[in-house]
Amino acid sequence: MKENIDKIKSLNLENYGHDFLLTWNKTPDELEATLLMAELLKERHRQGKPNLVFDSGLAVSIFRDNSTRTRFSFASAANALGLAVSDMDEEKSQVSHGETVRETANMISFMTRVIGIRDDMYLGEGHSYMKEVSAAVQAGFEEGVLHNRPGLINLQCDIDHPTQSMSDLAMLKNYFGSLDNLKGKKIAMSWAYSPSYGKPLSVPQGIIGLLTRYGMDVTLAHPEGYSLIPEVVKLADKQAQVSSGSFQITNSMDEAFSGADIVYPKSWAPFDVMEERTTLLKQGDQAGLKGLEKSCLTNNAKFTDWECTEDKMKLTKGGEALYMHCLPADITGVSCEQGEVSASVFDKYRRDTYLEASYKPFIIAAMMFLTSQKHPLSALDKLA
Amino acid sequence: MKENIDKIKSLNLENYGHDFLLTWNKTPDELEATLLMAELLKERHRQGKPNLVFDSGLAVSIFRDNSTRTRFSFASAANALGLAVSDMDEEKSQVSHGETVRETANMISFMTRVIGIRDDMYLGEGHSYMKEVSAAVQAGFEEGVLHNRPGLINLQCDIDHPTQSMSDLAMLKNYFGSLDNLKGKKIAMSWAYSPSYGKPLSVPQGIIGLLTRYGMDVTLAHPEGYSLIPEVVKLADKQAQVSSGSFQITNSMDEAFSGADIVYPKSWAPFDVMEERTTLLKQGDQAGLKGLEKSCLTNNAKFTDWECTEDKMKLTKGGEALYMHCLPADITGVSCEQGEVSASVFDKYRRDTYLEASYKPFIIAAMMFLTSQKHPLSALDKLA
Amino acid sequence: MKENIDKIKSLNLENYGHDFLLTWNKTPDELEATLLMAELLKERHRQGKPNLVFDSGLAVSIFRDNSTRTRFSFASAANALGLAVSDMDEEKSQVSHGETVRETANMISFMTRVIGIRDDMYLGEGHSYMKEVSAAVQAGFEEGVLHNRPGLINLQCDIDHPTQSMSDLAMLKNYFGSLDNLKGKKIAMSWAYSPSYGKPLSVPQGIIGLLTRYGMDVTLAHPEGYSLIPEVVKLADKQAQVSSGSFQITNSMDEAFSGADIVYPKSWAPFDVMEERTTLLKQGDQAGLKGLEKSCLTNNAKFTDWECTEDKMKLTKGGEALYMHCLPADITGVSCEQGEVSASVFDKYRRDTYLEASYKPFIIAAMMFLTSQKHPLSALDKLA
Repeated sequence: MKENIDKIKSLNLENYGHDFLLTWNKTPDELEATLLMAELLKERHRQGKPNLVFDSGLAVSIFRDNSTRTRFSFASAANALGLAVSDMDEEKSQVSHGETVRETANMISFMTRVIGIRDDMYLGEGHSYMKEVSAAVQAGFEEGVLHNRPGLINLQCDIDHPTQSMSDLAMLKNYFGSLDNLKGKKIAMSWAYSPSYGKPLSVPQGIIGLLTRYGMDVTLAHPEGYSLIPEVVKLADKQAQVSSGSFQITNSMDEAFSGADIVYPKSWAPFDVMEERTTLLKQGDQAGLKGLEKSCLTNNAKFTDWECTEDKMKLTKGGEALYMHCLPADITGVSCEQGEVSASVFDKYRRDTYLEASYKPFIIAAMMFLTSQKHPLSALDKLA
Repeated sequence: MKENIDKIKSLNLENYGHDFLLTWNKTPDELEATLLMAELLKERHRQGKPNLVFDSGLAVSIFRDNSTRTRFSFASAANALGLAVSDMDEEKSQVSHGETVRETANMISFMTRVIGIRDDMYLGEGHSYMKEVSAAVQAGFEEGVLHNRPGLINLQCDIDHPTQSMSDLAMLKNYFGSLDNLKGKKIAMSWAYSPSYGKPLSVPQGIIGLLTRYGMDVTLAHPEGYSLIPEVVKLADKQAQVSSGSFQITNSMDEAFSGADIVYPKSWAPFDVMEERTTLLKQGDQAGLKGLEKSCLTNNAKFTDWECTEDKMKLTKGGEALYMHCLPADITGVSCEQGEVSASVFDKYRRDTYLEASYKPFIIAAMMFLTSQKHPLSALDKLA
Repeated sequence: MKENIDKIKSLNLENYGHDFLLTWNKTPDELEATLLMAELLKERHRQGKPNLVFDSGLAVSIFRDNSTRTRFSFASAANALGLAVSDMDEEKSQVSHGETVRETANMISFMTRVIGIRDDMYLGEGHSYMKEVSAAVQAGFEEGVLHNRPGLINLQCDIDHPTQSMSDLAMLKNYFGSLDNLKGKKIAMSWAYSPSYGKPLSVPQGIIGLLTRYGMDVTLAHPEGYSLIPEVVKLADKQAQVSSGSFQITNSMDEAFSGADIVYPKSWAPFDVMEERTTLLKQGDQAGLKGLEKSCLTNNAKFTDWECTEDKMKLTKGGEALYMHCLPADITGVSCEQGEVSASVFDKYRRDTYLEASYKPFIIAAMMFLTSQKHPLSALDKLA
């Protein structure tokens, strides 16, 4: 643990008030500090040592979409650091802007150290909303209305899902031994069939937007028409060049799986569908939404062979690639008739997916620690 | 208080990871340690001394039925020991099993020390569900996914209601001076009339399943047809023999009250009705449920004289038996036109019923302490 | 801060178990202690010093009306002092009395230090309900059922809104330098137009019921027919005489604003309408409620010129009166087409209204501290 502390201290950190919204807006040092801090907090927790860096204060969560896992991860992280969770229940459909957001953000923040937001239902909305809240609390802090500048944490937006992708990165670092060891490793971020529709794009976008920075060989695979937000795809491509990794897109799951060290088969809705859905949701067009769902499911049904089966796994490196998933997975014959992954493959990697998930509360805690402590390094010394 | 600590230390405890699901699966030592611990925590609280044995951690509550009192008792207990409550709101009708339960149980437990579950709506469901959750967190702990093994506490299931029956036992121990003094005392666990229907069987089952172990003279009284789960009745009978107490069933409230030291008049639905209701609930058969309710209420109405009145109380020992109730009671002329107990009887024993209830948060805290602390005895020393 | 502590110690306090329900039932010393304590807690929070006077315990909130701001203020205050919040969600329409209130109040209070209640929907209900809860926990404490006497805090009732009016007083004290400096200052508590209806009377009543005690020149302005509860108006008049201030009522917003040092333009429903509404709500008369709303909005629409505009502000002292509002305000062209205040006036005073709101969590914390600590002065010493 001392090693982690020394390493964090050697990094260039300007975290206070620097919200954690998109991984690609964070420096490599900030990302590494987050990983190191998460590992430190996790190991201390395993040893039964307290991580209470706040004596009091609120961690406000704003969920604009249902969630059980992220709620508990957020609550766990807050509690571990000494903060109390206060939920703000917003009508899911109510998308407030401007004056209302500014005022509410300040009204809930007089004793708040962290605000976590999940808003992934509308393309073009979630990230914008978070930036509005961020600007509001920044202004409130500068004007002397707020004694502390609450740090914002993106618990999933329309563009990125940093608490997920960072947990996945923590898992990979631990699995392969170091960040350096990820260089040249091939990951297949692949679409997979699901009997549901409208799943957000933020998980695959988060993965390609983060792992291309570590010299990995990132292959994005999906059926024709299931593309992601173009800007994020471009970004991934650029980052891969900078990190001397690579980034490919293919319409073949087999091609992606071939020789892969890691596979991440997961369903999502096509970008075009999400755009149309956003328009219909805003218009409250129920008939249109039903029509869209029907046509989308019909289209999905053409790709039921995009399933992570034992045969597909045989294509991977030595037949032993690491299977990853953000959970819950659509497991064929278990949670649905036909889904993203066969029961035997899932079962083989069940413990791995649980471990992958186990990083999330600590990643969130690390983000809270680094963005909301005025002097994280001295707080670190007090911990140790 | 020192006496309680010394006594707890003399008992044979293997609590860690031993969930508190059914009192009859706990050893006499485990039950006594729970009582002694509850008394200790209660006395310390009365004196304004802190009971903080955890520095942080979550206490997760899963309520599959409405509850105010148990919610507050659970929240109070968690807070007193230093845990933060996190509610998991499940759709009441959604009965999940298998993979989903295993996964969810682990996902909510990364920093969780205690899980409290209330699931009493379906016969054959509540206890099974708790065992599934228990197996899931046990496996997660053994596989290294969870750093701690969260202790499970049954906050009422289809079979038992241990937090209630143990609070009642604590009340009786205090009222009569010791557990030994309960030997030979007669308790009338009696059905009583209520204008509602479908009340769970777990309270009377919990009472006969626990008090028959203390050499008491336990009489179960109910109109014909209002029997309890047969296995629990058999168990009560067997336990009474072992403890040199007695166990009788009668269809006369008067007979049960005659010479009783304690009376516990409380409405419940007949076992057969609960079975039929479970089937209809699972089928979502609203018309069937309405029909069942109607016929059940009609049948109930034949037994409006099963009311705990002043006249009935005169039949008890010296006319001064202790009246008990888990609250809220259906009080004639107060909370309903005609109910379980007359206003004058209830009023005479109002303070006693409040005291009876006052043990519950401390009983729950004792269960949390003993099942979730790796080293409860050394934690005890730190408290003292 | 030492000054505040010394001053609090010089005051005559008998707070323990003295609930904070109506400001006019509190002595001047109790009010001043609350202000001084709020300032102390706020300054300590600004400096990053902990205010943890409780080691554990619950702060129960009972909201019988929706609320975001007050919820967060209550949660912040509780957390700052070391208490955990437990919400009791009551059906909004369910108005319980008698036995049920007595029992529930005790059942939720075994480890509870503070109970905050918001109940402002029905005239004649909110304050009565709070008094019932207060009597119940007082009896429970005296009977030995409760180890602590939870302090009650009125988070808004049908008559008063003390957490708001005391925050406003704290703002005014800070803005003008001292309570003494408020003598002779003119405040215009004025009705203002809003496109909604049925807003409670408790804010204007709270303001005239509090500020008339500080020698201020209080002018209540509203269109004919928009009067407040007569008893509170009489009380304001009497208090103004005692404090050598003054109290006037006018039907002209301009007259009220003329030469005012402070303006507080805010919509409310006429007393008569609130009485009729209460009757209809109790009867569940939906048609009647719709009719009442329609006729009330039609009447409101006659007074759209009751808006706080730049022109109106020019009438005030030097054109620079302090604008106050409890938030959220109905801002013309921002949150509604036409409302209580013009966008330019609101924007000029936006920071001031946020500061005004920033006192509320600390005012609530001060009320908690003083009503729920057996020995607040020695707790104060421990803080310092």
